Amino acid sequence: MPEKNRERFPLFITHREDVRPEDRQAVGQLVRATGFFSEEEANIAVELVEERLAKGDASGYFFLLAEEGNRLLGYTCFGPIPGSVHSFDLYWIAVDPGEQGRGVGRTLMAAAERIMAGCGARRLYADTSSLPQYEPTRAFYLACGYLEEAFLTDFYAPGDGKVIFVKTLPACAP
Amino acid sequence: MPEKNRERFPLFITHREDVRPEDRQAVGQLVRATGFFSEEEANIAVELVEERLAKGDASGYFFLLAEEGNRLLGYTCFGPIPGSVHSFDLYWIAVDPGEQGRGVGRTLMAAAERIMAGCGARRLYADTSSLPQYEPTRAFYLACGYLEEAFLTDFYAPGDGKVIFVKTLPACAP
Repeated sequence: MPEKNRERFPLFITHREDVRPEDRQAVGQLVRATGFFSEEEANIAVELVEERLAKGDASGYFFLLAEEGNRLLGYTCFGPIPGSVHSFDLYWIAVDPGEQGRGVGRTLMAAAERIMAGCGARRLYADTSSLPQYEPTRAFYLACGYLEEAFLTDFYAPGDGKVIFVKTLPACAP
Repeated sequence: MPEKNRERFPLFITHREDVRPEDRQAVGQLVRATGFFSEEEANIAVELVEERLAKGDASGYFFLLAEEGNRLLGYTCFGPIPGSVHSFDLYWIAVDPGEQGRGVGRTLMAAAERIMAGCGARRLYADTSSLPQYEPTRAFYLACGYLEEAFLTDFYAPGDGKVIFVKTLPACAP
């Protein structure tokens, strides 16, 4: 961990589940800042915020936002998979690149897992690309206890497959 | 093929891409009549029709409906997978149980593939359950040239996994 980040411990990060109109812009900026997502994907991230604002729980999209004061450090978006009895999809997890290495992502993931477990989730799915630049993303899922369960060749583009990770939760909420 | 169906050849089946308000009810009835889908899934099928009616192409849901006169025999719903350059998802394909064995599904699939290929599709994905009662569905995909590419254990429920099929299309539209 870089020295500049280590100095900033302990963390004073709060988590928030309710989504506010101003999150549209903050989420869009954060997702674009990571450099991990295409413009199309960034637009989808913002659309999910808008769906959540418009429809609430009925949208199927649940959010957890990590903030320090009023500043968004990272967020995750997840929800039950329609047609399944106990599977959830981790649609998004992103951390401001200037805040990476502080445990924001790990803390967000753990808190989101507690929420999903409380909703009856037993299997959490997360997908990512097989391209070399997503190696940190894949390492993050593995570090969070996910396992690689399937691979879809050329899913996103020629040479760019989809890796499907899954994490099994115990029957009782942690 | 049962004699009662064989008598009904030749087929006078037409395909239609534009979705109309009355298709909401017809699609819901057809999907429920198959006995293959839960009530939750049947509601999702109708919601996709409504999304299409409300947003058109921007919905991301494209339909092909097979009719004899004004009667719906079967339909399929498909669309590009966001974030991919050439992958399409076959969200639904269903045939009225009284019309099965006439080639309605195979004909719909072939026509949908031509439409998708014309839109640049190179990889078509279709998912189904691993339960024994979906053996006809899995056999149908295999007969249509799909291959089983991945399996997600317990995806839908304990003992009910998700089978992911893929079909690769040639670079030029058939």
